[in-house]
Amino acid sequence: MTHKPRFAVFLSGCGVFDGAEIHESVLSLLAIDRHGGTYQCFAPDIPQHHVIDHRTGQPTGETRNVLSEAARIARGAIADLATFDPAAFDIVLLPGGFGVAKNFCTFAFDGPACAVDPTVEAAIRAAHAAGLPIGALCIAPALIARILGPVTVTIGQDEGTAKAIQSLGATHRAARPTEVVVDPDTRVVTTPCYMLNSSISQIADGADGAVRALIELLPRP
Amino acid sequence: MTHKPRFAVFLSGCGVFDGAEIHESVLSLLAIDRHGGTYQCFAPDIPQHHVIDHRTGQPTGETRNVLSEAARIARGAIADLATFDPAAFDIVLLPGGFGVAKNFCTFAFDGPACAVDPTVEAAIRAAHAAGLPIGALCIAPALIARILGPVTVTIGQDEGTAKAIQSLGATHRAARPTEVVVDPDTRVVTTPCYMLNSSISQIADGADGAVRALIELLPRP
Repeated sequence: MTHKPRFAVFLSGCGVFDGAEIHESVLSLLAIDRHGGTYQCFAPDIPQHHVIDHRTGQPTGETRNVLSEAARIARGAIADLATFDPAAFDIVLLPGGFGVAKNFCTFAFDGPACAVDPTVEAAIRAAHAAGLPIGALCIAPALIARILGPVTVTIGQDEGTAKAIQSLGATHRAARPTEVVVDPDTRVVTTPCYMLNSSISQIADGADGAVRALIELLPRP
Repeated sequence: MTHKPRFAVFLSGCGVFDGAEIHESVLSLLAIDRHGGTYQCFAPDIPQHHVIDHRTGQPTGETRNVLSEAARIARGAIADLATFDPAAFDIVLLPGGFGVAKNFCTFAFDGPACAVDPTVEAAIRAAHAAGLPIGALCIAPALIARILGPVTVTIGQDEGTAKAIQSLGATHRAARPTEVVVDPDTRVVTTPCYMLNSSISQIADGADGAVRALIELLPRP
Protein backbone atom coordinates (compact mmCIF):
# COMPACT_ATOMS: atom_id res chain seq x y z
CA MET A 1 0.00 0.00 0.00
CA THR A 2 1.29 3.40 -0.94
CA HIS A 3 -1.45 5.42 0.76
CA LYS A 4 -2.62 5.76 4.36
CA PRO A 5 -4.96 2.95 5.47
CA ARG A 6 -8.52 4.14 4.74
CA PHE A 7 -11.06 3.06 7.37
CA ALA A 8 -14.83 2.97 6.89
CA VAL A 9 -16.41 3.16 10.36
CA PHE A 10 -20.02 1.93 10.63
CA LEU A 11 -21.97 3.67 13.43
CA SER A 12 -25.37 2.48 14.72
CA GLY A 13 -26.54 5.69 16.42
CA CYS A 14 -25.19 7.66 19.39
CA GLY A 15 -25.44 6.19 22.89
CA VAL A 16 -24.72 2.80 24.46
CA PHE A 17 -28.34 1.77 25.18
CA ASP A 18 -29.93 2.52 21.78
CA GLY A 19 -27.05 3.36 19.42
CA ALA A 20 -23.28 3.19 18.92
CA GLU A 21 -21.28 3.08 22.15
CA ILE A 22 -19.76 6.56 22.27
CA HIS A 23 -16.44 5.77 24.00
CA GLU A 24 -15.75 2.82 21.68
CA SER A 25 -16.60 4.96 18.64
CA VAL A 26 -14.46 7.98 19.61
CA LEU A 27 -11.54 5.83 20.76
CA SER A 28 -11.68 3.88 17.48
CA LEU A 29 -11.37 7.15 15.53
CA LEU A 30 -8.49 8.18 17.81
CA ALA A 31 -6.71 4.85 17.29
CA ILE A 32 -7.08 5.14 13.50
CA ASP A 33 -5.60 8.66 13.54
CA ARG A 34 -2.78 7.63 15.94
CA HIS A 35 -1.83 4.77 13.57
CA GLY A 36 -1.68 7.08 10.55
CA GLY A 37 -5.00 6.04 9.01
CA THR A 38 -7.88 8.10 7.66
CA TYR A 39 -11.55 7.50 8.39
CA GLN A 40 -15.02 8.08 6.98
CA CYS A 41 -18.03 7.39 9.20
CA PHE A 42 -21.15 5.75 7.73
CA ALA A 43 -24.60 4.96 9.12
CA PRO A 44 -27.82 3.63 7.61
CA ASP A 45 -30.66 6.09 6.97
CA ILE A 46 -33.21 4.17 9.06
CA PRO A 47 -35.21 4.84 12.23
CA GLN A 48 -33.72 3.63 15.52
CA HIS A 49 -35.47 0.60 17.02
CA HIS A 50 -36.32 2.87 19.98
CA VAL A 51 -34.94 5.74 22.07
CA ILE A 52 -33.69 5.10 25.62
CA ASP A 53 -33.39 7.94 28.15
CA HIS A 54 -29.80 7.24 29.25
CA ARG A 55 -30.46 8.85 32.66
CA THR A 56 -33.32 6.49 33.57
CA GLY A 57 -32.72 3.53 31.25
CA GLN A 58 -36.36 3.72 30.12
CA PRO A 59 -37.78 4.06 26.56
CA THR A 60 -39.06 7.56 25.77
CA GLY A 61 -41.47 6.96 22.87
CA GLU A 62 -39.46 9.36 20.66
CA THR A 63 -38.42 8.55 17.09
CA ARG A 64 -34.82 9.22 16.00
CA ASN A 65 -32.86 8.46 12.82
CA VAL A 66 -29.69 6.34 13.05
CA LEU A 67 -27.79 8.43 10.46
CA SER A 68 -28.69 11.77 12.08
CA GLU A 69 -27.75 10.54 15.58
CA ALA A 70 -24.52 8.87 14.42
CA ALA A 71 -23.63 12.21 12.82
CA ARG A 72 -23.19 13.57 16.37
CA ILE A 73 -20.18 11.28 16.91
CA ALA A 74 -18.85 12.17 13.44
CA ARG A 75 -19.26 15.96 13.99
CA GLY A 76 -21.47 16.04 10.88
CA ALA A 77 -18.91 14.33 8.61
CA ILE A 78 -20.93 11.21 7.86
CA ALA A 79 -22.23 9.40 4.78
CA ASP A 80 -25.27 7.20 4.14
CA LEU A 81 -24.21 3.55 4.45
CA ALA A 82 -26.15 2.84 1.23
CA THR A 83 -23.38 4.74 -0.62
CA PHE A 84 -20.51 2.67 0.86
CA ASP A 85 -18.12 1.46 -1.88
CA PRO A 86 -15.53 -1.06 -0.63
CA ALA A 87 -13.18 -0.08 -3.47
CA ALA A 88 -12.65 3.29 -1.76
CA PHE A 89 -11.52 1.75 1.55
CA ASP A 90 -8.97 -0.69 2.98
CA ILE A 91 -10.61 -1.66 6.28
CA VAL A 92 -14.09 -1.68 7.87
CA LEU A 93 -14.51 -1.12 11.62
CA LEU A 94 -17.67 -1.49 13.72
CA PRO A 95 -17.73 -0.10 17.27
CA GLY A 96 -20.29 -1.73 19.59
CA GLY A 97 -23.22 -0.51 21.63
CA PHE A 98 -26.81 -1.80 21.70
CA GLY A 99 -27.40 -0.02 18.37
CA VAL A 100 -25.54 -2.87 16.64
CA ALA A 101 -27.93 -5.40 18.24
CA LYS A 102 -31.09 -3.24 17.94
CA ASN A 103 -30.66 -1.11 14.77
CA PHE A 104 -28.15 -3.03 12.61
CA CYS A 105 -29.87 -6.31 13.49
CA THR A 106 -32.34 -7.63 16.07
CA PHE A 107 -29.86 -9.79 18.03
CA ALA A 108 -30.79 -8.04 21.32
CA PHE A 109 -34.36 -9.32 20.96
CA ASP A 110 -34.15 -12.41 18.76
CA GLY A 111 -30.66 -13.84 19.43
CA PRO A 112 -29.12 -15.97 16.65
CA ALA A 113 -32.42 -15.99 14.70
CA CYS A 114 -32.16 -12.20 14.34
CA ALA A 115 -32.96 -10.22 11.20
CA VAL A 116 -30.27 -7.97 9.72
CA ASP A 117 -30.86 -4.55 8.17
CA PRO A 118 -30.42 -5.10 4.40
CA THR A 119 -28.16 -2.05 3.92
CA VAL A 120 -25.88 -3.18 6.75
CA GLU A 121 -25.79 -6.75 5.44
CA ALA A 122 -24.99 -5.62 1.90
CA ALA A 123 -22.16 -3.38 3.11
CA ILE A 124 -20.56 -6.09 5.28
CA ARG A 125 -20.89 -8.71 2.51
CA ALA A 126 -19.41 -6.32 -0.07
CA ALA A 127 -16.48 -5.44 2.20
CA HIS A 128 -15.79 -9.11 2.95
CA ALA A 129 -16.09 -10.12 -0.72
CA ALA A 130 -13.59 -7.38 -1.63
CA GLY A 131 -11.11 -8.83 0.89
CA LEU A 132 -11.23 -5.94 3.35
CA PRO A 133 -10.30 -6.80 6.94
CA ILE A 134 -13.29 -6.19 9.23
CA GLY A 135 -12.92 -5.13 12.86
CA ALA A 136 -15.79 -5.55 15.33
CA LEU A 137 -15.83 -4.36 18.95
CA CYS A 138 -18.02 -5.35 21.91
CA ILE A 139 -21.29 -6.98 20.68
CA ALA A 140 -20.57 -6.26 16.97
CA PRO A 141 -18.95 -9.71 16.48
CA ALA A 142 -22.45 -11.24 16.88
CA LEU A 143 -23.56 -9.31 13.79
CA ILE A 144 -20.48 -10.46 11.85
CA ALA A 145 -21.14 -14.10 12.85
CA ARG A 146 -24.79 -13.73 11.78
CA ILE A 147 -23.73 -12.46 8.33
CA LEU A 148 -20.49 -14.36 7.65
CA GLY A 149 -21.08 -17.60 9.61
CA PRO A 150 -17.80 -19.52 10.17
CA VAL A 151 -15.59 -16.79 11.70
CA THR A 152 -13.51 -16.91 14.89
CA VAL A 153 -14.39 -14.03 17.21
CA THR A 154 -14.57 -12.90 20.83
CA ILE A 155 -17.24 -11.04 22.75
CA GLY A 156 -15.33 -11.44 26.01
CA GLN A 157 -16.62 -13.91 28.62
CA ASP A 158 -20.45 -13.94 28.43
CA GLU A 159 -21.43 -17.60 27.99
CA GLY A 160 -24.95 -16.99 26.70
CA THR A 161 -23.77 -14.66 23.95
CA ALA A 162 -20.86 -16.99 23.13
CA LYS A 163 -23.28 -19.91 22.70
CA ALA A 164 -25.57 -17.84 20.48
CA ILE A 165 -22.57 -16.97 18.30
CA GLN A 166 -21.45 -20.59 18.10
CA SER A 167 -24.97 -21.62 17.01
CA LEU A 168 -24.38 -19.43 13.92
CA GLY A 169 -21.44 -21.63 12.89
CA ALA A 170 -18.81 -19.27 14.34
CA THR A 171 -16.08 -20.13 16.84
CA HIS A 172 -15.92 -18.13 20.07
CA ARG A 173 -12.70 -17.53 21.98
CA ALA A 174 -12.97 -16.11 25.51
CA ALA A 175 -10.86 -12.97 25.96
CA ARG A 176 -9.82 -10.56 28.71
CA PRO A 177 -10.07 -6.73 28.55
CA THR A 178 -7.88 -5.25 25.74
CA GLU A 179 -7.21 -8.73 24.29
CA VAL A 180 -7.60 -8.89 20.49
CA VAL A 181 -8.65 -12.02 18.56
CA VAL A 182 -7.49 -12.18 14.93
CA ASP A 183 -8.99 -14.67 12.46
CA PRO A 184 -6.36 -14.71 9.68
CA ASP A 185 -8.58 -16.78 7.33
CA THR A 186 -11.61 -14.46 7.31
CA ARG A 187 -9.56 -11.34 8.20
CA VAL A 188 -11.94 -10.55 11.07
CA VAL A 189 -10.52 -8.80 14.19
CA THR A 190 -12.50 -8.59 17.45
CA THR A 191 -12.02 -7.36 21.03
CA PRO A 192 -14.48 -7.27 23.98
CA CYS A 193 -14.42 -3.56 24.99
CA TYR A 194 -17.53 -2.86 27.15
CA MET A 195 -18.78 -6.47 26.88
CA LEU A 196 -16.48 -6.72 29.93
CA ASN A 197 -16.44 -4.41 32.95
CA SER A 198 -13.60 -2.21 31.70
CA SER A 199 -12.09 1.21 32.35
CA ILE A 200 -12.11 3.82 29.60
CA SER A 201 -8.30 3.36 29.31
CA GLN A 202 -8.87 -0.34 28.62
CA ILE A 203 -11.40 0.59 25.91
CA ALA A 204 -8.77 2.87 24.35
CA ASP A 205 -6.17 0.09 24.52
CA GLY A 206 -8.58 -2.48 23.06
CA ALA A 207 -9.55 -0.21 20.16
CA ASP A 208 -5.88 0.61 19.58
CA GLY A 209 -4.94 -3.06 19.52
CA ALA A 210 -7.75 -3.88 17.09
CA VAL A 211 -6.76 -1.05 14.73
CA ARG A 212 -3.11 -2.14 14.81
CA ALA A 213 -4.09 -5.76 14.06
CA LEU A 214 -6.33 -4.65 11.18
CA ILE A 215 -3.53 -2.62 9.59
CA GLU A 216 -1.14 -5.57 9.96
CA LEU A 217 -3.56 -7.65 7.84
CA LEU A 218 -3.08 -5.29 4.86
CA PRO A 219 -0.55 -6.10 2.11
CA ARG A 220 2.88 -4.59 2.86
CA PRO A 221 4.09 -1.80 0.55
CA MET B 1 -3.45 14.67 48.69
CA THR B 2 -3.63 11.08 49.77
CA HIS B 3 -6.39 10.02 47.37
CA LYS B 4 -6.72 9.95 43.61
CA PRO B 5 -7.64 13.35 42.08
CA ARG B 6 -11.44 13.48 41.91
CA PHE B 7 -12.76 15.25 38.80
CA ALA B 8 -16.27 16.64 38.37
CA VAL B 9 -16.96 16.88 34.62
CA PHE B 10 -19.75 19.25 33.55
CA LEU B 11 -21.46 18.16 30.30
CA SER B 12 -23.83 20.40 28.29
CA GLY B 13 -25.61 17.71 26.24
CA CYS B 14 -24.35 15.29 23.58
CA GLY B 15 -23.24 16.61 20.19
CA VAL B 16 -21.06 19.46 18.98
CA PHE B 17 -23.81 21.64 17.46
CA ASP B 18 -26.32 21.63 20.36
CA GLY B 19 -24.55 19.96 23.29
CA ALA B 20 -21.19 18.85 24.67
CA GLU B 21 -18.55 18.12 22.02
CA ILE B 22 -18.36 14.32 22.12
CA HIS B 23 -14.66 13.85 21.26
CA GLU B 24 -13.57 16.48 23.80
CA SER B 25 -15.79 14.89 26.46
CA VAL B 26 -14.65 11.29 25.91
CA LEU B 27 -10.99 12.25 25.56
CA SER B 28 -11.22 14.27 28.80
CA LEU B 29 -12.53 11.19 30.62
CA LEU B 30 -9.73 9.12 29.04
CA ALA B 31 -7.09 11.67 30.12
CA ILE B 32 -8.42 11.67 33.70
CA ASP B 33 -8.26 7.87 33.86
CA ARG B 34 -4.79 7.76 32.25
CA HIS B 35 -3.50 10.22 34.88
CA GLY B 36 -4.88 8.12 37.76
CA GLY B 37 -7.89 10.31 38.53
CA THR B 38 -11.54 9.42 39.06
CA TYR B 39 -14.50 11.21 37.51
CA GLN B 40 -18.19 11.90 38.02
CA CYS B 41 -20.16 13.51 35.19
CA PHE B 42 -22.77 16.19 35.93
CA ALA B 43 -25.31 18.06 33.81
CA PRO B 44 -28.14 20.47 34.57
CA ASP B 45 -31.73 19.15 34.42
CA ILE B 46 -32.89 21.74 31.86
CA PRO B 47 -34.18 21.67 28.28
CA GLN B 48 -31.63 22.15 25.49
CA HIS B 49 -31.84 25.52 23.73
CA HIS B 50 -32.68 23.57 20.58
CA VAL B 51 -31.92 20.30 18.76
CA ILE B 52 -29.73 20.32 15.64
CA ASP B 53 -29.83 17.46 13.14
CA HIS B 54 -26.06 16.84 12.94
CA ARG B 55 -26.39 15.40 9.43
CA THR B 56 -27.98 18.54 7.96
CA GLY B 57 -26.98 21.24 10.47
CA GLN B 58 -30.62 22.33 10.70
CA PRO B 59 -32.86 22.65 13.81
CA THR B 60 -35.42 19.86 14.11
CA GLY B 61 -38.08 21.35 16.38
CA GLU B 62 -37.60 18.51 18.90
CA THR B 63 -37.22 19.07 22.66
CA ARG B 64 -34.43 17.26 24.53
CA ASN B 65 -33.16 17.44 28.12
CA VAL B 66 -29.49 18.34 28.74
CA LEU B 67 -29.09 15.83 31.61
CA SER B 68 -30.66 12.93 29.68
CA GLU B 69 -28.56 13.62 26.55
CA ALA B 70 -25.32 14.13 28.51
CA ALA B 71 -26.04 10.75 30.15
CA ARG B 72 -25.27 9.18 26.74
CA ILE B 73 -21.63 10.27 27.03
CA ALA B 74 -21.54 9.13 30.67
CA ARG B 75 -23.08 5.69 29.87
CA GLY B 76 -25.84 6.51 32.37
CA ALA B 77 -23.48 7.32 35.26
CA ILE B 78 -24.43 10.97 35.65
CA ALA B 79 -25.71 13.27 38.40
CA ASP B 80 -27.87 16.39 38.40
CA LEU B 81 -25.59 19.43 38.49
CA ALA B 82 -27.87 20.91 41.20
CA THR B 83 -26.43 18.26 43.56
CA PHE B 84 -22.76 19.16 42.89
CA ASP B 85 -20.82 19.59 46.16
CA PRO B 86 -17.30 21.01 45.67
CA ALA B 87 -16.17 19.40 48.95
CA ALA B 88 -16.45 15.98 47.28
CA PHE B 89 -14.12 16.90 44.38
CA ASP B 90 -10.63 18.25 43.70
CA ILE B 91 -11.00 19.58 40.15
CA VAL B 92 -13.78 20.72 37.80
CA LEU B 93 -13.47 20.18 34.03
CA LEU B 94 -15.71 21.53 31.26
CA PRO B 95 -15.41 20.10 27.75
CA GLY B 96 -16.62 22.41 24.96
CA GLY B 97 -19.22 22.19 22.22
CA PHE B 98 -22.03 24.60 21.36
CA GLY B 99 -23.96 23.29 24.38
CA VAL B 100 -21.71 25.40 26.61
CA ALA B 101 -22.64 28.52 24.60
CA LYS B 102 -26.31 27.58 24.04
CA ASN B 103 -27.40 25.58 27.14
CA PHE B 104 -24.99 26.60 29.93
CA CYS B 105 -25.20 30.24 28.78
CA THR B 106 -26.39 32.23 25.76
CA PHE B 107 -22.92 33.29 24.51
CA ALA B 108 -23.58 31.84 21.04
CA PHE B 109 -26.47 34.28 20.60
CA ASP B 110 -25.72 37.21 22.92
CA GLY B 111 -21.91 37.31 23.15
CA PRO B 112 -20.46 38.90 26.31
CA ALA B 113 -23.91 40.15 27.41
CA CYS B 114 -25.07 36.52 27.67
CA ALA B 115 -27.22 35.09 30.44
CA VAL B 116 -25.89 32.10 32.42
CA ASP B 117 -27.98 29.16 33.64
CA PRO B 118 -28.28 29.67 37.42
CA THR B 119 -27.38 26.06 38.32
CA VAL B 120 -24.26 26.24 36.14
CA GLU B 121 -23.25 29.62 37.58
CA ALA B 122 -23.76 28.43 41.19
CA ALA B 123 -21.66 25.29 40.57
CA ILE B 124 -18.77 27.20 38.96
CA ARG B 125 -18.82 29.89 41.67
CA ALA B 126 -18.90 27.25 44.45
CA ALA B 127 -16.00 25.32 42.89
CA HIS B 128 -13.95 28.50 42.48
CA ALA B 129 -14.73 29.71 46.01
CA ALA B 130 -13.60 26.31 47.36
CA GLY B 131 -10.26 26.71 45.58
CA LEU B 132 -10.78 23.94 43.03
CA PRO B 133 -8.79 24.26 39.81
CA ILE B 134 -11.18 24.63 36.85
CA GLY B 135 -10.36 23.36 33.38
CA ALA B 136 -12.23 24.64 30.31
CA LEU B 137 -11.82 23.36 26.74
CA CYS B 138 -12.77 24.91 23.39
CA ILE B 139 -15.47 27.61 23.88
CA ALA B 140 -15.95 26.87 27.63
CA PRO B 141 -13.41 29.57 28.63
CA ALA B 142 -15.97 32.18 27.46
CA LEU B 143 -18.39 30.88 30.12
CA ILE B 144 -15.64 30.98 32.78
CA ALA B 145 -14.75 34.57 31.80
CA ARG B 146 -18.44 35.53 31.95
CA ILE B 147 -18.74 34.13 35.51
CA LEU B 148 -15.29 34.84 37.02
CA GLY B 149 -14.25 37.99 35.11
CA PRO B 150 -10.48 38.62 35.41
CA VAL B 151 -9.05 35.25 34.35
CA THR B 152 -6.36 34.51 31.75
CA VAL B 153 -7.60 32.01 29.16
CA THR B 154 -7.29 30.87 25.57
CA ILE B 155 -9.91 29.93 22.99
CA GLY B 156 -7.25 29.52 20.31
CA GLN B 157 -6.97 32.16 17.57
CA ASP B 158 -10.49 33.49 16.85
CA GLU B 159 -10.23 37.29 17.19
CA GLY B 160 -13.95 37.97 17.58
CA THR B 161 -14.32 35.50 20.44
CA ALA B 162 -11.08 36.72 22.01
CA LYS B 163 -12.37 40.32 21.97
CA ALA B 164 -15.70 39.26 23.50
CA ILE B 165 -13.78 37.50 26.29
CA GLN B 166 -11.57 40.53 26.90
CA SER B 167 -14.67 42.76 27.16
CA LEU B 168 -15.61 40.64 30.21
CA GLY B 169 -12.43 41.71 32.02
CA ALA B 170 -10.50 38.56 31.13
CA THR B 171 -7.13 38.32 29.38
CA HIS B 172 -6.90 36.27 26.19
CA ARG B 173 -3.74 34.50 25.06
CA ALA B 174 -3.63 33.11 21.53
CA ALA B 175 -2.68 29.43 21.46
CA ARG B 176 -1.93 26.70 18.94
CA PRO B 177 -3.49 23.21 18.88
CA THR B 178 -2.68 21.18 22.05
CA GLU B 179 -1.20 24.29 23.78
CA VAL B 180 -2.41 24.72 27.39
CA VAL B 181 -2.75 28.10 29.13
CA VAL B 182 -2.50 28.01 32.94
CA ASP B 183 -3.59 30.98 35.09
CA PRO B 184 -1.87 30.23 38.42
CA ASP B 185 -3.73 33.03 40.24
CA THR B 186 -7.27 31.88 39.46
CA ARG B 187 -6.25 28.20 38.94
CA VAL B 188 -8.01 28.17 35.56
CA VAL B 189 -6.58 25.92 32.81
CA THR B 190 -7.69 26.24 29.16
CA THR B 191 -6.83 24.76 25.74
CA PRO B 192 -8.39 25.40 22.30
CA CYS B 193 -9.38 21.86 21.18
CA TYR B 194 -11.93 22.17 18.32
CA MET B 195 -11.88 26.00 18.42
CA LEU B 196 -8.99 25.32 16.02
CA ASN B 197 -9.05 23.01 13.01
CA SER B 198 -7.50 20.02 14.80
CA SER B 199 -7.15 16.28 14.38
CA ILE B 200 -8.72 13.95 16.94
CA SER B 201 -5.17 13.09 18.14
CA GLN B 202 -4.59 16.79 18.83
CA ILE B 203 -7.84 16.89 20.82
CA ALA B 204 -6.60 13.92 22.88
CA ASP B 205 -3.24 15.63 23.43
CA GLY B 206 -4.91 18.94 24.38
CA ALA B 207 -7.25 17.26 26.88
CA ASP B 208 -4.34 15.25 28.27
CA GLY B 209 -2.23 18.38 28.72
CA ALA B 210 -5.08 20.22 30.44
CA VAL B 211 -5.71 17.33 32.84
CA ARG B 212 -2.00 17.10 33.68
CA ALA B 213 -1.83 20.86 34.32
CA LEU B 214 -4.93 20.72 36.54
CA ILE B 215 -3.46 17.91 38.66
CA GLU B 216 -0.18 19.85 38.98
CA LEU B 217 -2.16 22.71 40.55
CA LEU B 218 -3.23 20.47 43.46
CA PRO B 219 -1.30 20.47 46.75
CA ARG B 220 1.48 17.85 46.72
CA PRO B 221 1.08 14.87 49.09
